[in-house]
Amino acid sequence: MTLSADRLAALDAFIIDLNRASAEVILPLFRADHGLEDKGAGKDLPPASHAAFDPVTEADRGAEAAIRALIAKTYPEHGVIGEEYGEDRPDAEFVWVLDPIDGTRAFISGLPVWTTLIGLRHQGRPVLGSIGQPYIGEIFLGHAGGSRLLSRGIERRIQVRDCPALTSAIIATTDPDACFDGAERAAWLQVRAAAKLARLGCDAYAYAMVALGKMDMVIEAGLKSWDIEAAIPVIEGAGGVVTDWHGQPIGQHGGQMVISGDRRPLEEALVALRRSAK
Amino acid sequence: MTLSADRLAALDAFIIDLNRASAEVILPLFRADHGLEDKGAGKDLPPASHAAFDPVTEADRGAEAAIRALIAKTYPEHGVIGEEYGEDRPDAEFVWVLDPIDGTRAFISGLPVWTTLIGLRHQGRPVLGSIGQPYIGEIFLGHAGGSRLLSRGIERRIQVRDCPALTSAIIATTDPDACFDGAERAAWLQVRAAAKLARLGCDAYAYAMVALGKMDMVIEAGLKSWDIEAAIPVIEGAGGVVTDWHGQPIGQHGGQMVISGDRRPLEEALVALRRSAK
Repeated sequence: MTLSADRLAALDAFIIDLNRASAEVILPLFRADHGLEDKGAGKDLPPASHAAFDPVTEADRGAEAAIRALIAKTYPEHGVIGEEYGEDRPDAEFVWVLDPIDGTRAFISGLPVWTTLIGLRHQGRPVLGSIGQPYIGEIFLGHAGGSRLLSRGIERRIQVRDCPALTSAIIATTDPDACFDGAERAAWLQVRAAAKLARLGCDAYAYAMVALGKMDMVIEAGLKSWDIEAAIPVIEGAGGVVTDWHGQPIGQHGGQMVISGDRRPLEEALVALRRSAK
Repeated sequence: MTLSADRLAALDAFIIDLNRASAEVILPLFRADHGLEDKGAGKDLPPASHAAFDPVTEADRGAEAAIRALIAKTYPEHGVIGEEYGEDRPDAEFVWVLDPIDGTRAFISGLPVWTTLIGLRHQGRPVLGSIGQPYIGEIFLGHAGGSRLLSRGIERRIQVRDCPALTSAIIATTDPDACFDGAERAAWLQVRAAAKLARLGCDAYAYAMVALGKMDMVIEAGLKSWDIEAAIPVIEGAGGVVTDWHGQPIGQHGGQMVISGDRRPLEEALVALRRSAK
């Protein structure tokens, strides 16, 4: 069964509702102090309970539960895959793939570059996705009909920009010392040496910057499916491409990934990346 | 002459005005397309003019000019030091030190972690400073009376957090491969190996996270005075400390810097940093 335009429009509206439900749980916990200072009963709890309070875990679990509840109520036949609560009906016609807080290290550091990733598979293929940053007030949303940025009541179409060669490219990765093995880091440094500019530390927020036409390429490794699937429709809807380090379509298993706005610098980067491709 | 509380309060209010004046120039240019798409006459300009349009330079210069104009009108006797327009009366009793866009690489990449740095020296000593992120809507502001965060109409006191040891510390630097020489990078990696968590790519926004009590330490090198002076009163007002890599008070020449919320992890980090101190 193909996905009708009407059905896609309904799901497009629904993914915004899912972002709102997630944000309501997460935002009160972003930059919240450990130790429950804002909760009346907190100060009377024994120290062990204080130590156990982990805002990012609370936020991630609470948001995933809120998203799952809204899906179960609206589309009970849909499947769901999430980091916190596992897989429900992963072989359903429609399957949501969730990561309410991608960039947990940014989150616990107070940095507003963590994102809420929500993707939808139809018959095994990513067809709709969103990258949300509710503290800033942004949702980057995409499907085959195009990608858009919803920001503080304003909605506009977004698209990747032309980038004729790697020497003109702004590229990004999150943390070459922590996220890459030795061969991957060497490949990254080789691509970086040829690029115009590199940015670090952005997690999936960098994917959104490619869709927005402000960055040209993101190179990552060691990803999980929920780190990637939401991004694919946003990037592809904006005219970009997502591959593994062989230059092949990325599978549902995650791993190594390149996002590129233009295919030309991607081909150049793949010369280096293929040597470390898994 | 000491700085009276009344005079400091007036300057504290004025630095918010300076942030507003700067933001009015910068925000329309953040994420603006090269090529003047938003300007009616743009499409008729010859290609050379298109190529010459550089949003970040326009924004940086325009904002520094706006800030300088407001200072000249309100406090004509004050000195000003800025990256774009040089030094005016650098030996005056009061001297403003400006960097309207710290993190130009973040700015051109569309990332909202660039900041507007405005500092004030009184008799050669930093006494007031602000770290502003107008796209998000935040001003972190500090002086000897304390530091605060002004965010979307809400104002609250901020302070560094306790961090008993480096193993509990969230640390940050902007780009170890680009900003450090070999010895500095080795020192960073040694500190990082002992820390709980490291974040990259934040520029001066990381300083604000230390003042907010969400990060514990920032380590940078190759800084200019306008990269640092605004941050010192924000960090010190929040209870933190700013030193060079010898552990000494940082001078007006810039260079290597460590910002730490708590002195205990700083002492540990300095064991490694001193070996690469200049």
